[in-house]
Amino acid sequence: MSERREFRDLADPERAHDLIGSLDVGPGVETVPLREARDRVLAERVDADLDVPGFDRASMDGYAVRGRDTFGAGEADPVALDLVGEVHAGVEPDVTVEAGTCAEISTGAVMPPGADAVVMVEETDETDDGSILMRTAVAPGDNVMLAGADVAAGSRALGPGTRLTPREIGLLSALGRDEVPVRARPTVGIVSTGDELVRPGDALDSARGEIYDVNSYTIAAGVEEAGGEPRLYPHAGDDYDEMERILRQAADECDLVLSSGSTSASAVDVIYRVIEDRGELLLHGVAVKPGKPMLVGRLDPADGGEGDDSPSAYVGLPGYPVSALTIFRTFVAPAIREAAGLPEPRTATVTGRMAVQERYSEGRTRLMPVGLLEGASVAETAESAAGDTAETAAGDAGDDAPLVYPVDKGSGATTSLVEADGIVEVPADTDYLEAGEEVEVRLFSPDVRPPTLLGVGEDDPALSRLLDRLERPRYLPVGSREGLRRLRDGLPDLAVTAGPVDRDVDAPVIGGWTREWGLVVPADNPADVTGLADLVDRELRFVNRDTNSGLRASLAAAVDDLADERGVDRHDLVEAVDGFELGTKAHESPARKVAAGEADAGLGLRATADRLGLGFVSLGTQPVELRVNPARRGGDGVADLEAALAEFAIDLPGYAIDGDA
Amino acid sequence: MSERREFRDLADPERAHDLIGSLDVGPGVETVPLREARDRVLAERVDADLDVPGFDRASMDGYAVRGRDTFGAGEADPVALDLVGEVHAGVEPDVTVEAGTCAEISTGAVMPPGADAVVMVEETDETDDGSILMRTAVAPGDNVMLAGADVAAGSRALGPGTRLTPREIGLLSALGRDEVPVRARPTVGIVSTGDELVRPGDALDSARGEIYDVNSYTIAAGVEEAGGEPRLYPHAGDDYDEMERILRQAADECDLVLSSGSTSASAVDVIYRVIEDRGELLLHGVAVKPGKPMLVGRLDPADGGEGDDSPSAYVGLPGYPVSALTIFRTFVAPAIREAAGLPEPRTATVTGRMAVQERYSEGRTRLMPVGLLEGASVAETAESAAGDTAETAAGDAGDDAPLVYPVDKGSGATTSLVEADGIVEVPADTDYLEAGEEVEVRLFSPDVRPPTLLGVGEDDPALSRLLDRLERPRYLPVGSREGLRRLRDGLPDLAVTAGPVDRDVDAPVIGGWTREWGLVVPADNPADVTGLADLVDRELRFVNRDTNSGLRASLAAAVDDLADERGVDRHDLVEAVDGFELGTKAHESPARKVAAGEADAGLGLRATADRLGLGFVSLGTQPVELRVNPARRGGDGVADLEAALAEFAIDLPGYAIDGDA
Repeated sequence: MSERREFRDLADPERAHDLIGSLDVGPGVETVPLREARDRVLAERVDADLDVPGFDRASMDGYAVRGRDTFGAGEADPVALDLVGEVHAGVEPDVTVEAGTCAEISTGAVMPPGADAVVMVEETDETDDGSILMRTAVAPGDNVMLAGADVAAGSRALGPGTRLTPREIGLLSALGRDEVPVRARPTVGIVSTGDELVRPGDALDSARGEIYDVNSYTIAAGVEEAGGEPRLYPHAGDDYDEMERILRQAADECDLVLSSGSTSASAVDVIYRVIEDRGELLLHGVAVKPGKPMLVGRLDPADGGEGDDSPSAYVGLPGYPVSALTIFRTFVAPAIREAAGLPEPRTATVTGRMAVQERYSEGRTRLMPVGLLEGASVAETAESAAGDTAETAAGDAGDDAPLVYPVDKGSGATTSLVEADGIVEVPADTDYLEAGEEVEVRLFSPDVRPPTLLGVGEDDPALSRLLDRLERPRYLPVGSREGLRRLRDGLPDLAVTAGPVDRDVDAPVIGGWTREWGLVVPADNPADVTGLADLVDRELRFVNRDTNSGLRASLAAAVDDLADERGVDRHDLVEAVDGFELGTKAHESPARKVAAGEADAGLGLRATADRLGLGFVSLGTQPVELRVNPARRGGDGVADLEAALAEFAIDLPGYAIDGDA
Repeated sequence: MSERREFRDLADPERAHDLIGSLDVGPGVETVPLREARDRVLAERVDADLDVPGFDRASMDGYAVRGRDTFGAGEADPVALDLVGEVHAGVEPDVTVEAGTCAEISTGAVMPPGADAVVMVEETDETDDGSILMRTAVAPGDNVMLAGADVAAGSRALGPGTRLTPREIGLLSALGRDEVPVRARPTVGIVSTGDELVRPGDALDSARGEIYDVNSYTIAAGVEEAGGEPRLYPHAGDDYDEMERILRQAADECDLVLSSGSTSASAVDVIYRVIEDRGELLLHGVAVKPGKPMLVGRLDPADGGEGDDSPSAYVGLPGYPVSALTIFRTFVAPAIREAAGLPEPRTATVTGRMAVQERYSEGRTRLMPVGLLEGASVAETAESAAGDTAETAAGDAGDDAPLVYPVDKGSGATTSLVEADGIVEVPADTDYLEAGEEVEVRLFSPDVRPPTLLGVGEDDPALSRLLDRLERPRYLPVGSREGLRRLRDGLPDLAVTAGPVDRDVDAPVIGGWTREWGLVVPADNPADVTGLADLVDRELRFVNRDTNSGLRASLAAAVDDLADERGVDRHDLVEAVDGFELGTKAHESPARKVAAGEADAGLGLRATADRLGLGFVSLGTQPVELRVNPARRGGDGVADLEAALAEFAIDLPGYAIDGDA
């Protein structure tokens, strides 16, 4: 068995921050066209090198005059001035305004010689003899912008480090700049490791344990978001030479190299050796959960490479997607932002309140993935959340602070990526976070917006369509039984159940429908399955759902009925069905196994069978019920759901909406 | 004189919102590679069409076993299992785990037939005979992720309208998607009008009244920020045929066409006629300040154009940069966001408190440009701000809410763009906003961050360098006198004065330097100017600064001295200087006029003369003093300034830092 490297001397997270901060990731300065400068960061101060405007400029449509000629003018006593010409914007004046005269002038035009003020056209009248009556007096300078009054040549226009938003682009335009010096974007090489990884879009061989590479694109998107320029490199397996070649190529071409992917110790080992041989390993292992196997170092570029000779920064991320993104977000993104000169966006963190008590005692910093829920107050859930010590902690977060709840599906789960909104950093010496306690959530992305509705329960195709009509719902298909349990604990807004419900929960049903369930069989039903009895009496391979599923509950009830009918023990029937106890987690898995020829029958819906072009043996209909948390019924999320339900129609085989669920 | 169109029937702002909202700007759906999908918006629901993982997957490095074989195992009483092979990630298992056996397995590998659990390697020992000792018991399923347990095939993965951040990119990667259907970005054509406009980078002829085109790039950047795709079109003058051709080409190629630029009534008139002839004018004139001359309509595409035949939406923006951006931000950006499917960013607005009372009574909605200031509380300024009715209004904004103050330099000023951070919408029936009153500020950009320090006063090249060392300072070069006045009114943190200061202000001086001032003359001083007396006694063209400038104050003092010396009236001396009363606003204007041969001498600094390669006749040195608002001395902004000052050295001709200013 290969030698496995243990991470025994774990570094403090602070040390990891410091080390990464000390690496040189900054790529310097580049000049970009103004047209492409939005969102870039000015590398140096820009002083105005011209006056804006560059001339004394009329700021109204009207008549250019000598102010003193209008003194005493008023509505009742206008002053007549001879019109001697006109001046348009963009044209050099060819007229001089002498005493007693005026010139028509357009907004933006150059003040003609002699004139020092403009009378607005609205305060004038033309006369028949061609002179103009001024119905108001103006002082010299009125309705004129003097040269340099807007921006003075030589003055400081924008400081170094200024982020260029539309308004700064506007000022630079006014100064005539068509290119600007900005901080260059750090280039970040991304190397995913693991023989089992396949790029999205390519074919997958599950029998070999292949999975799609999640980290490459996720981290690339994170790099972009932090102001860096990602470069993807080919996957590296755990072959030393290949890994070395790819990592050194990346080091040659990039300011920072990130590896991620396989978490198997052997692959980590190979990387570890490459960094030690071809650079410098500064840190291995950090006392955080997740992220223990993090590496920090420097990587020398390839011999004879195109880049400069200085080493690149290197960080090794864990392989599990949520862990990789968590470590990236916590340790790496800030370094990229710093190098790019971009501040952390204000939306990168939010203050929320723990919805439930969370115990913790692992002795290392925990980067806890959490979900957020908007529009629900803690009191509602803290009360129902278990825990005799649950007492609302004091804090400054407003009542509209979102609820925060831990998402812990195991760090290997991709879905945690979208079920969690961010991370709460829990110090190593924390024993528990109290329900109601204020916590700072580092969002996975500044663009993350907390869901407005949290639903849990049965997976159902009609429900998916209903959810499409809501703004930002989050729905966790945990099954009817688990969904109901969670609703009773008080966190979700909604639980969706299918089939018989054995728990008594105080949660009003706000709507629902019925769906036809039964056995999904191959097209044209070659084995001529007619019902449940066939599964018991014949040699048929059956695929079941897990016990949280409402389909499984209806099937169990049907088994009970059959046992009663036959006067036998339920257990004997179940034993006779090949595959009854092996429940699949996945919604369509039974049907898909049938489609793949791996089973003769699977538990499922008529709608699924129809969609996949399979046969179907009906065993009945079951109700699907939407139950809401009574404390949330006044909230926006539930109100939107009820509004959507009110006009919801289902066009799916085997479905019917009962007017009164 | 051309016919001028008046906007007499002004529409309500709400009607403008509604009309723009009713225009079809949505460009539909496009498919993009996942790699480029960040920040895009999903156009339709994505369901999982495979199980993730696609196989039962080891989630730890260790040994694949039959769980029941380990029952009873413990540290003291390990169970030995025969090692029958190994399974690596990415390889199909070639071994079956029978009772009493185990197989070495890597994280991520396919569980071999027969095995149903994994014992972590840390809880095992190898023996000399090749068998493995299990020091713990595992239940079936332990350390295994079942197929579909992460994402179930057929389940709803992401809903329509989901914004794709790194985590959603991750989930889509896991599902093997390499391209996704997203909302297309609305294309927005931008047509600037005005014969006087010149594209940044091109040469400017100020004598003709040419100015750089500010709106095209500003609005283009705003369109990008709102999720649209801007297209710039050539400038159109106020020639009907040219305007028609350009507008219809834009209508052919874009979902929305924006015009902006010249505010002269004649150009507006031409656009007006084009829209009426070649489309439909739905609204002209809105009862807002600024933005009265706004147009809303539809534009038919060019005959035989490449786009579809449906008309494009059209909005005519005002010409002044701040007005254009204000109207764009208020009415147009929301429509682009809506079409792009992007929500308004949370950072698009902030709640602040009015720093001063602001009276208002114009009878139409005012979109008031405002500046923000972080880290200063209202009480400090409300107290000192004039106004007997100044009473802190109640509100919910926290004490750390930024201060809000009106920026009103006239809407023609480009610098308002960067001196203002956003807009407060003041309803038509509001008489005044109270100091301390809570207001909602619509930021010009979600990326706008309020300054941490607000300084006002003299323009000075050494000060520019000092400001470069601060995080986000805002400095308004309003001159020493005006700066001091504003400091006394309590809003700024800092006022910088140069020369003699005639106001008595309770504001501690925290540092400063001296600078050499005098007469800037052509290189080698061809007129042999020796001092102030030459300006009085000889026929020299002089360029002065305005009366707010500290340079002007020192010059005035020198004139007084000369008058005393000669025993004449000060006024007589001033009258004798050609150009004394004509003060330029711009910092370097006098020197630049000298350089351009338009003057024989200009008031200025030795540092400026040196920089521009001009001659210099010294008239003395003057102190430059940094005075801070006593109420802000504890604040971060002033603290950072003091820290920067402490290590500030000046390397500029004629400058000296006095240890104790």
